[in-house]
Amino acid sequence: MQIKYQAKIFVTLRPSVLDPAGTAVQSGLKQLGYNNVESCRIGKYIELTLIAPDEKTARQNLDTMCDQMLANPVIENYRFDLIEVESQTGVF
Amino acid sequence: MQIKYQAKIFVTLRPSVLDPAGTAVQSGLKQLGYNNVESCRIGKYIELTLIAPDEKTARQNLDTMCDQMLANPVIENYRFDLIEVESQTGVF
Repeated sequence: MQIKYQAKIFVTLRPSVLDPAGTAVQSGLKQLGYNNVESCRIGKYIELTLIAPDEKTARQNLDTMCDQMLANPVIENYRFDLIEVESQTGVF
Repeated sequence: MQIKYQAKIFVTLRPSVLDPAGTAVQSGLKQLGYNNVESCRIGKYIELTLIAPDEKTARQNLDTMCDQMLANPVIENYRFDLIEVESQTGVF
């Protein structure tokens, strides 16, 4: 049996890494009059649906996808939420 | 009294809008051997700390920041989570 999962993946720069995009957005917000913004960090938000036999396999898949492609392990951290969307009978 | 809030903002393309970046990532994952990925959509994840007198004002600020700058209302949707980080006495 195959199960469909939805993953919400958050890729963020490590705290020690400078974030020029975030700094630029913060100064843009300041120009719009928002002086009350203390910090702004920008990352990637990825919504992905995948088919897997069980949750453990889905999590392993996501870990290796993030390590290999979705996040740069040198400068980025990632975390994800995983929910079961629908279970499908029959061969994948 | 001023309160510090942390906002987690999710900016995603509207479902009707094509997502070339997501499609490219999905085909990249396929080349890595992940044929079990059914869909992939990529958006922005913004972590922002701001000072506001109360939650209602903080939410209003975030709405206008998103409308004016952080999200393109024509092709993107946004939503955010807001948590109180610390309350500060004294003048902002």
